[in-house]
Amino acid sequence: MTTQFHEKTLSADALDQIFREARSYNGWLAKPVTEAQISAIYELMKMGPTSANMQPARIVWVKSADAKDRLAACASEGNRDKILTAPVTAVIGYDIDFHEELPWLFPHTDAKSWFDGDEEGRKEGAFRNSALQGAYLMIAARAIGLDCGPMSGFDAKKVEQEFFGDNPWHRVNFICSIGYGDPTSIFDRSPRPEFDTFNTLV
Amino acid sequence: MTTQFHEKTLSADALDQIFREARSYNGWLAKPVTEAQISAIYELMKMGPTSANMQPARIVWVKSADAKDRLAACASEGNRDKILTAPVTAVIGYDIDFHEELPWLFPHTDAKSWFDGDEEGRKEGAFRNSALQGAYLMIAARAIGLDCGPMSGFDAKKVEQEFFGDNPWHRVNFICSIGYGDPTSIFDRSPRPEFDTFNTLV
Repeated sequence: MTTQFHEKTLSADALDQIFREARSYNGWLAKPVTEAQISAIYELMKMGPTSANMQPARIVWVKSADAKDRLAACASEGNRDKILTAPVTAVIGYDIDFHEELPWLFPHTDAKSWFDGDEEGRKEGAFRNSALQGAYLMIAARAIGLDCGPMSGFDAKKVEQEFFGDNPWHRVNFICSIGYGDPTSIFDRSPRPEFDTFNTLV
Repeated sequence: MTTQFHEKTLSADALDQIFREARSYNGWLAKPVTEAQISAIYELMKMGPTSANMQPARIVWVKSADAKDRLAACASEGNRDKILTAPVTAVIGYDIDFHEELPWLFPHTDAKSWFDGDEEGRKEGAFRNSALQGAYLMIAARAIGLDCGPMSGFDAKKVEQEFFGDNPWHRVNFICSIGYGDPTSIFDRSPRPEFDTFNTLV
């Protein structure tokens, strides 16, 4: 039996840390992110739900100077320094052939057969669910005291060639620098909508 | 200046609540979700990052008996009861014409012009970023003591017609029931990958 938390709300500090005070950083303090922290992010994010537990995200953590140079060369000019100065940047990719892993990821039924021969359905499912996993990654990083700087300004084909080159079924979704954010590198927070603007209750 | 939480990790209970012990529920206790709770979910999720603050999610919260019937009629057979018995089901849609809102959502530059005339780019951006927002929605619901049951088994065209019918630029991403999960309705947790299975450090 799993533990439930009905009627329990996270502390105000915790909600601030993962949502309300967290910001997307453009610059980073000169303080490394360790392999243990990267592993801790993944151990949390992998618990988040994906459709049929497909777990399509394939992540390359870009940490060495050489790898940062290679990733920065694929990014739009405004994003290059955000990669070069970050302790680590996660390349959040996905595997269009994720269904080959379903026999062990979703063992209680033959979920692989739902996707055999349906490349369009697999592309959509992998894209949607790897985006969910990218969001879990960012919340998990914040939950352990790190900051994020997600980016989609890059040449996707170049990133795929450079980091997933040997697998033609891997695509990139977005990239996200992670570290200790430099508080002087953020802009004023952009406005957030009122509930009624984009929500309907029926 | 924003508050930072460097070196602070959420409590073990909080990490259990949003990631490690949270489960996808198939059945619900007979206990309502209030409009105040729905609003609280949105107030948290809207703080999560989206590209250029595009906030493309358009959410219909299906709470009345009539609306549940209409949504259940669009769902695959195995998902109908999950909708009918849930206190509320969020239809997480997105607006392909989100760029029309960028002048007020991202006021410091002319981001609308980046997307004018680029329907394919808008579709991809809206799909990716509304999936991120769907993940924030689930984490936010869990953070205030509720449980989630995300689903992608439904007829998308029917859902769009039924709930976004008057706007041809709105699409559905996925749907998610929310409430107090019935602990007898969950299966054994599906296996999660070790770090080295789907991650590379370079």
